[in-house]
Amino acid sequence: MTFLANIDAVRGQRLRERLAAIAPGQAVVLPGEPFDRADIRYILTWEAPQDLSAFPALEIVFSVGAGVDQFLRSRLPDNVALVRVIDPGLTAMMQEYVAMAVLSLHRDLPAYVAQQRREVWGKVAVPPPASERRVGVMGLGELGRGALEALRPFGFGLAGWARSAHSIEGVRCHHGAEGLGPFLADTDILVCLLPLTRETEGILDAGLFSRLPEGAALVHAGRGRQLNHTDLMAALDSGRLRAAVIDVTEPEPLAPGHPFWSDPRILLTPHIACITSVDMIAQPIAANLARHGRGEPMSGLVQPGRGY
Amino acid sequence: MTFLANIDAVRGQRLRERLAAIAPGQAVVLPGEPFDRADIRYILTWEAPQDLSAFPALEIVFSVGAGVDQFLRSRLPDNVALVRVIDPGLTAMMQEYVAMAVLSLHRDLPAYVAQQRREVWGKVAVPPPASERRVGVMGLGELGRGALEALRPFGFGLAGWARSAHSIEGVRCHHGAEGLGPFLADTDILVCLLPLTRETEGILDAGLFSRLPEGAALVHAGRGRQLNHTDLMAALDSGRLRAAVIDVTEPEPLAPGHPFWSDPRILLTPHIACITSVDMIAQPIAANLARHGRGEPMSGLVQPGRGY
Repeated sequence: MTFLANIDAVRGQRLRERLAAIAPGQAVVLPGEPFDRADIRYILTWEAPQDLSAFPALEIVFSVGAGVDQFLRSRLPDNVALVRVIDPGLTAMMQEYVAMAVLSLHRDLPAYVAQQRREVWGKVAVPPPASERRVGVMGLGELGRGALEALRPFGFGLAGWARSAHSIEGVRCHHGAEGLGPFLADTDILVCLLPLTRETEGILDAGLFSRLPEGAALVHAGRGRQLNHTDLMAALDSGRLRAAVIDVTEPEPLAPGHPFWSDPRILLTPHIACITSVDMIAQPIAANLARHGRGEPMSGLVQPGRGY
Repeated sequence: MTFLANIDAVRGQRLRERLAAIAPGQAVVLPGEPFDRADIRYILTWEAPQDLSAFPALEIVFSVGAGVDQFLRSRLPDNVALVRVIDPGLTAMMQEYVAMAVLSLHRDLPAYVAQQRREVWGKVAVPPPASERRVGVMGLGELGRGALEALRPFGFGLAGWARSAHSIEGVRCHHGAEGLGPFLADTDILVCLLPLTRETEGILDAGLFSRLPEGAALVHAGRGRQLNHTDLMAALDSGRLRAAVIDVTEPEPLAPGHPFWSDPRILLTPHIACITSVDMIAQPIAANLARHGRGEPMSGLVQPGRGY
């Protein structure tokens, strides 16, 4: 029944202390410590371990962070459950990031940052009222819905797009390939929070940008492999996009000399929209261990066929 | 009964069209047009005209923008009412700006902007949950209360300070000189939205910064003359403050070579937190003209002795 916390020693020790308080009796080992692989029932990890067949009693892999694409590219045995850590703290972090990014694009912060660097004083635009600025969120899971809730009080026009149909009060919801065009045509600030799947890889490309209104803006906090960098630069150069806030790239870190570093129309952050802290993940892990012990469905269980 | 719109011709013409629709019969003249000064009953202006005694029938000066300090430094005749334009649109702009600025400081955006410039990838800090970040707003008028409402959904710990006592649900309110110390000691991100008065001139100085917790941050969207620039730089250098978002300076524009332009801990915007648009101000002006005509108190009437 041992739990392997495949994370760094400092955070692993803290997780052990947390779990001791809320899941007493649960043995926790860290990578540098002696343990018998045959005892490992649960693994907490960011990247999928190279060879999971070395853990014959493995039942659950807990993914640190909301995304699980790194596991789906590797092979999980069929009898091992993959569980995303879903926690209100993670959603709150994404809400903060998306609100910060959307407000920054709404109020032209990238242009003001560039002006400051050149010692230029003066307004670059009179922003429309939020009610005349349409924000469209791609991805309507926990994070996408949370982002929409955070934007709502400002009065933005809200729309959402996902693979399957959703209904969210006050949000124009579109879905599927047919819904994408109408969604994009109605979006001034596009927020990508999609999971990485075969369908979403490279989705932010020239074809998609061409369906946005002239002068739209982009917030990308999904996965790096969803964005075509060359196409983004071309969309900025043509004026199709006026600015972007980018949190994820492929690869990470971004290569030295990459144009995103120095482009005054881009605010770049180093994959910090959601930072998973041990304090946030101990409680949902303990709750899922308890559910698993009682034979109940776990929260955040990934459906492998769907990819998220 | 003529209304002099002492603003640029484009915006003046637009205001005339708006008022024609909602205050029919009201004559509006612009600075370049012929008119008899003795006919002018109402003046809309940003800066106080040099010599108001040239308008013997003047009854009301409408101030464009929320602040009126520029009028109080000049001399208004006792029989002339000074009215601030208070409009939900202005409050909404300030709510957007304060939310953007507070979230940027909460999530370390100034440091990430500086890292981007140096092509550095990596997180600079794990931000605490918003519930453990205390935001304190100085000034609890329309804008200050609006700012607190915009911050509330994120779950920040909220406090307010003003000259006189206020009561706002969920906000620890302090007031007066005695309340300032406890307010500051409890504030991680300080937001200044105070009006400029004799008491608030230079209020953001070394003495005030020394009462904040180590590593606090500042949003300044009040008036430039409230901030001591030398003291801000010293507080940043000592670590008392870790970062600042500054929208107002004295003078404006900021002088070439001023340290605020290039300091990586400062995000500088050129007095754009609230941008008054003619579309926003026509309605409250028409409403006040109607109230004045009926002998009712106008909304936004300034009490000269108080200074705001």
